Formats: sequence, C-alpha cells, structure tokens
Amino acid sequence: MRVLVLGGDGFCGWPTALHLSDHGHDVTILDNLSRRAIDLELEVESLTPVRALGERLRVWRQVSGRDIGFVRLDLATEYDRLVSVLTRLRPDAVVHFAEQRAAPYSMRSTGSKRYTVDNNVRATHNLLTALVATGGETALVHLGTMGVYGYGWSGSAPIPEGYLTVKVPTPDGDLEREILHPANPGSVYHLTKTLDQLMFAFYAHNDGLRITDLHQGIVWGTQTPQTARDERLVNRFDYDGDFGTVLNRFLMQAAIGHPLTVHGTGGQTRAFIHIRDTVRCIEIALSNPPEPGAKPTVFNQITETHRVRDLAELVSAMTGVEVANLPNPRQEAVENDLVVRNDRFLALGLKPTTLSEGLLEECTDIAARYCDRVDPSKIVCRSVWREGMAVAEDLLTDLPVRQPVTVD
Amino acid sequence: MRVLVLGGDGFCGWPTALHLSDHGHDVTILDNLSRRAIDLELEVESLTPVRALGERLRVWRQVSGRDIGFVRLDLATEYDRLVSVLTRLRPDAVVHFAEQRAAPYSMRSTGSKRYTVDNNVRATHNLLTALVATGGETALVHLGTMGVYGYGWSGSAPIPEGYLTVKVPTPDGDLEREILHPANPGSVYHLTKTLDQLMFAFYAHNDGLRITDLHQGIVWGTQTPQTARDERLVNRFDYDGDFGTVLNRFLMQAAIGHPLTVHGTGGQTRAFIHIRDTVRCIEIALSNPPEPGAKPTVFNQITETHRVRDLAELVSAMTGVEVANLPNPRQEAVENDLVVRNDRFLALGLKPTTLSEGLLEECTDIAARYCDRVDPSKIVCRSVWREGMAVAEDLLTDLPVRQPVTVD
Ligand SMILES: NC(=O)c1ccc[n+]([C@@H]2O[C@H](COP(=O)([O-])OP(=O)(O)OC[C@H]3O[C@@H](n4cnc5c(N)ncnc54)[C@H](O)[C@@H]3O)[C@@H](O)[C@H]2O)c1
Ligand SMILES: NC(=O)c1ccc[n+]([C@@H]2O[C@H](COP(=O)([O-])OP(=O)(O)OC[C@H]3O[C@@H](n4cnc5c(N)ncnc54)[C@H](O)[C@@H]3O)[C@@H](O)[C@H]2O)c1
Repeated sequence: MRVLVLGGDGFCGWPTALHLSDHGHDVTILDNLSRRAIDLELEVESLTPVRALGERLRVWRQVSGRDIGFVRLDLATEYDRLVSVLTRLRPDAVVHFAEQRAAPYSMRSTGSKRYTVDNNVRATHNLLTALVATGGETALVHLGTMGVYGYGWSGSAPIPEGYLTVKVPTPDGDLEREILHPANPGSVYHLTKTLDQLMFAFYAHNDGLRITDLHQGIVWGTQTPQTARDERLVNRFDYDGDFGTVLNRFLMQAAIGHPLTVHGTGGQTRAFIHIRDTVRCIEIALSNPPEPGAKPTVFNQITETHRVRDLAELVSAMTGVEVANLPNPRQEAVENDLVVRNDRFLALGLKPTTLSEGLLEECTDIAARYCDRVDPSKIVCRSVWREGMAVAEDLLTDLPVRQPVTVD
Repeated sequence: MRVLVLGGDGFCGWPTALHLSDHGHDVTILDNLSRRAIDLELEVESLTPVRALGERLRVWRQVSGRDIGFVRLDLATEYDRLVSVLTRLRPDAVVHFAEQRAAPYSMRSTGSKRYTVDNNVRATHNLLTALVATGGETALVHLGTMGVYGYGWSGSAPIPEGYLTVKVPTPDGDLEREILHPANPGSVYHLTKTLDQLMFAFYAHNDGLRITDLHQGIVWGTQTPQTARDERLVNRFDYDGDFGTVLNRFLMQAAIGHPLTVHGTGGQTRAFIHIRDTVRCIEIALSNPPEPGAKPTVFNQITETHRVRDLAELVSAMTGVEVANLPNPRQEAVENDLVVRNDRFLALGLKPTTLSEGLLEECTDIAARYCDRVDPSKIVCRSVWREGMAVAEDLLTDLPVRQPVTVD
C-alpha cells in the first residue's frame, strides 16, 4: 500500500511510519516540522534525544534497507503543493496526525488558541478538498481524541464508537436516530477535533470520501520494535507541562525524584493506549476503510481506563516518589467514571499491551536513562483555562538534576 | 447601547445598522468589503444600485442627523487591530454578520470552499478570543442559519430552538439529555455555521461569553423604513445564481420575463423572513442577552415556511411568467416538510411581515424598477455540489433585457 503519513515526524507519526515501512508499505512522510519549532518557542526538548528527520530516515534505510520519502509542507497554508504531492504519489491511504495536539498549549494564550484552530481546521479542510480534487479514492485515517465525547456525559452508559442511538420525541411517538455523539470538548485543542468530525461527516456524505476517525486515548510509552532498533531512531518523549501527557510525565518525574504532579483531586478517569498499540491500530484501520458513500467509521483507539490518582499511586509505589496535589488549571469535572467501547479493534485482532507489562520498561529504559536531559522549570503546567486561575510554583528548582531511579 | 456591527455593509448588516442608529443606538460598522470584491470576481452587481459605504454613511447623516462609524478591517486576518477596536469602542454588544454566506458560492470551486471555511471559522474564532481578551462583558449576537438543522431529520417533530431533548439509553434506563440539535449541513457554507455553534458552546462554557445565535431563514425583501429614506441608502439585492436567494430571484426573474428557475421538483420546504423582521429580531436579541455562564441562546429567526414550487407558482400567478424546472445542483432531499418553532421571538413581541403584504411592493418598487440592471447570463446557478452534476444553459440570452412587469 502507498501511504502518506501527515505529521510523520511527531510522537505517533514517526513510529507509525516505521511500522508501516517495516511491514512492507511504501511510506512518505509529510510534515512542516512545526512541533520542533514549538519546542524552540517553549525552550524545552524531548526527554529522548530526537535526531533531525533527515538523519532518522538515513538510519532507517541503513537498518531496514527501506526508503521512506519526506515532503516538508505546511498543510494549513500550502494547498497547491499538497495537491501536487497527492497527484504525484497517488497514495492508497493518508494517515493524518498533523495537528497541534496539546490541550494546555492550546489554552496558553490568545495566540496559541488561534494558532490551534487555524492550523488544525485548515490542515484538515485543505486535506479534504485536496482529496476531492484529486479523485476522492484515497482512504483517509485521522487521529481524533477521546476528549470529543466529554467525561461523564452519558451516565452509566459506555461511550460508544462515535455514534449514539437516541430517541427523539415527536408527536407520533419516539423516533430512533443515530447521531454523532454530542461534542463536549474540554479545551480549544479538543474543540478542533469536534470541528474535524463535522467536516468529515460532510465530505463523506457530499463527496463520498472514505474516512476513518480514530478517537484515541492518551498515548503512553515511547518505543516500538522499529524505533528501538537504533538509538538514532528513538521516538519523542514530551515531559513538559504543555505537551507531556500524564503517565509519561509521572514516569519522568519519578526518574528525577520530582513529586508526581496531580492536578485537582486526580479523580479524573481517562483512557490510555500504548504507542505500540497505536501503530497497530492504525494499520488495522488502514486495512478496513469504509466504502465510498458510507458515513465515517469511528474507532475508539484505547485499551485501558485509569483514574489519574491511581496511576500516580502506582508509579509512587513502584519508585517511592511522593504525590503532589496541584491546583487544576482545567475546567473539568473533579471526578468522573469512564467506560469505553473498543470492541471493533479487539474484533479486528488487537492484543493490547497492558500497563503492567510496559511500565517497568519505560521507567528504566527511557525515563531513568535520559533523566539528565530534564529541565525541572518546564515541569509544572503554566497554561490555565481561564485568566486568574491558580498555578503552582516550581517544585524542584536546583538545576541540573540527576537522581537515580529505584524501581522496586 | 454601543453596538459594533460586523459585516455592516452587507445585505442584512446595512439595514440593521440603520435601524439601530435610528432607534438611538451608537453604531459602528466593521467590514472588509469582501462582499463587494466577490461581485467584481463574479462580474455581477446588486440589482439595486448600492453606493460606496462612505457615501451611504454621509447620506445617513444628512437624512437622520446621526453618525455611524466605520472601520475597514478583515476579521479573519487582522486580529490585533480587532482587539484595538474593541478596546477603544468598548461596545455593549457586537452583531456578527461577517461571513461568506452563499451556499452555491461555497461549493463553486476548491478555492471557494477553502475561502469559506477559512474566512468564516477564523472570523468567528478571532472574534471570540478577542472578546475574551478584552474582558468578556460584550454580548455577542451571531447570524446562523436554519440550514444547520437539516431538513426532514426529525420527522413530524417541529424544529426546536437550537436544543433538542433526547433520551439516551443506559443500563439504568433512559437518560434525558438536552443536546445541541444534531448538525446536518447541506453545503460548505452551512457547515461553517455548524462549526461556529461548537465554538460558541465552548466559549460560553469556558469563558462565560454571552452569546446569542440566530438561526435565520432565507431573507427576502429589500427595503426597511430607513433604507427607503433616500435612494442612495438602498439595500443590496442579489439576484445571481450564487448569492441570489430563492424568493428575490423569482421576483427579479418575473420582472424581466425570465422563467422562474426551480431546481429539482421544487418540493423543498424552506423557512423565510422579511428583511424588516430581520432587523427587528436583531434588536430584540440585543435586548435579551443570556447571562454570563449560560449556554448560548438560540432563536429561530423565521416567520413563515413555504415550499419552493408554491412560491414559484405564487409569483407566476401574479405576473404571468412561467416556471422552469432545472436540474438540482445540490445534494438534498427532493421533498421535505418543515415545521419550525419561533415562539421566542413571537413572545418577545415580533409582528411578522407576511408574504402577502410584502410581495407586491417588492415586485413594483424593486424588481421592476431596477430590472434593466440585470445581466441574464448570471441568472442560472453554475455551482454544483459534486463534479459532473448537470447544469442548465442560459434561458435568456438576448442582452440587454428590458421587459415591463405586469402585476395582476
Ligand atoms: N499523543 C497523544 O497522547 C495523543 C492522544 C490522542 C490523540 N492524539 C492525536 O494524534 C495525532 C498525533 O499526535 P502526536 O502526539 O504525534 O503529536 P505531535 O505534535 O508529536 O505530532 C504532530 C506532527 O504534525 C506536524 N504538524 C502539525 N501541524 C502541521 C501542519 N499544518 N502541516 C504539516 N505538519 C504539521 C508536527 O510538526 C508534528 O510532527 C494528533 O492529531 C493528536 O491530536 C495524540
Ligand atoms: N441573506 C440571507 O438570506 C441569510 C439567511 C440566513 C442567514 N444569513 C446570515 O446573515 C449574515 C449576513 O448575511 P448577508 O446576506 O447580509 O450577507 P452579505 O454577504 O451581504 O454580508 C456579509 C458582510 O460581511 C462582510 N464580511 C465577510 N467576511 C468578512 C471578514 N472576514 N471581515 C470583515 N467583514 C467581512 C462582507 O463584506 C459583507 O459586507 C451571514 O452570516 C449569513 O450567513 C443570511
């Protein structure tokens, strides 16, 4: 299969590109390297030493004998070049990771709110119109988020895969209708994914585009079999307050002896998936596109759900590092339950990596190994959802930090 | 009240600005004049001779003794200037008309699809962030469209005002939930209004912005008491295949003896409102903003519903001009019923102008009076929803056309 991976230099995109290449697909990466530019803006770096993309691709050729192409292109602003790329490559499928994906970053300032909406809406919409303009045969797999559903909205009902059947009262009795699950986004970033959904529904209906939307949980872990083949292929690991995601942040914090930063009570329940499962899910989705004319297929790309404070306690018990409760900068429910359906991926053969398997390896191979690269002043989240909300001071101020991690 | 009218040079915005000024409000218009630029692009003009905005404002001062301010500004791209304007004016309310509003134009080409999404999403989102940045007190009244609901979706149930109460099945029995009415947009233009809705819900919830969204029907008629005070204040009248709306097009077609262009069977039922009622509704909405923290208020800004072919027959019977059935360039239901709730405006005192009152006046005062300005080659709609759909040839080719209208 010829696959174009949009955002293929990122945390999920890079291991996906390697996984697909390793499995015999003909892969091209398209990326504008904006994620690396944001690192410069925030003055922070991946915990793992990520190589320049050119070097990554050269090393991959050395270790695998396979070529991955690269196009540097901004999806949001370079429409005509995008059409040329699609016309030249004629990909069977496009995987679309290329959006600004951090909720705290999206709430950081007026500028970052506007950047997130402009970048994400235009990237997705340019892509949809370009797919129509180039024939509309190419299947599209997009990375959405579990955050579009909101948390606690449907009581004890499990979150369905994208669509919800409801009863609409009418003078002639209740009418059963399948609707896109109502949108309850928790940040400007999540909002953009709810906008994407409506665009997908429209272009699937009007133009027969074949679209799969993967509502992904929080990805944890770092390596896949492919990225582990050479240190120069290592995947990103974001640990900072804006881009770091909860479980990976706890692991890094444990590694440097930083208190585990729980916002609010930690009663938030969230869905998780290991990066190794992300790349497998994407391959499954690529092999099962909807028919032209069908509504977008939605999969919930998650394998486990956990309460944030339980994760903190797990990591704390494993490493002896204490838990710190910080003010919550988000407007969200203090506590919520979460039951999510992920039947489709399981039915299509996904064998999940569980927390109990992957966690130790992350602690030792990644967090402990690279902990001298941490800048502790970047750990506390400074982005708040509304002006005037409280933020914590830095919890560790002595620099550089190098602390041995003990794993029981 | 200090009111900023975004898009105040347009078909709805100009009469609204005059109406509010006439009623003692302190009005400033903000517009980038993009609608006039699109006229140049499409090589078509308003049926009525619309004066330059500077002249319009000078004449208004002469006839009313009142000043209306003007800021030329592109909402989608000039964020910093927008913040300066809001900071300087400190408006009590903003009325937001400033979007690309023609469904056929939005489907005309890849470029116009992208322009419509980029312009509308960014205009709305820039405005929302600017309102937050400048204190969040200003009430926002936005013009949405009935087209967000879709037609025929809820069977015999009337279309509610924005929100729908549904039953969600759960293991513990049905859960009653109020949701934003599911989005069923019929074009890229309508799609942008469904995106606006999600942005409004988010910013009302997260930032406490006070937002009213008016789901407006198709506006017909041309003049209000204020625009009729001097010919140089005359309102726009779009008759071309892209921007002309159905009833006004029939009137213009009748005036020049052009067959009345019905697309498909004409079985589409749509909601209508006279421009005189539009401006009143907006004043009502301005006087009844939601509280900070409340969800956006939605009004259905419509007064009557009609089947397209019934309107054609009405105009045909009145003028003797025949009806022509053309291929339908839209992907839409062939026939639909439509019952719409508009209780809130009626409860707040709206006295609708009915078709039977306003129609004759339009035929004689506007359509017949300016019919020598029509370019018949612009009448047939050339924009199609999907490549390859049929379009009709021009039905009248001799230019210039001047035909007396006979009104029985
Ligand atoms: N990481 C997670 O936990 C997680 C969870 C749920 C969903 N997702 C989704 O998965 C996707 C990938 O996430 P990630 O963690 O790999 O993010 P990332 O920021 O590491 O990667 C995104 C990549 O897209 C590129 N990009 C952004 N805008 C672009 C544009 N306009 N043109 C071209 N390239 C552009 C960036 O340079 C970056 O390389 C995102 O859409 C994200 O919303 C991620
Ligand atoms: N006319 C109708 O029948 C109708 C029906 C339902 C809803 N509406 C809605 O009412 C609103 C007004 O409609 P209209 O018929 O007056 O349209 P219009 O095109 O005549 O007026 C829109 C005005 O906004 C301005 N504008 C557009 N983008 C702008 C930007 N980025 N920055 C600054 N100004 C910008 C244009 O120059 C124009 O003067 C629209 O939002 C439309 O969707 C209209």
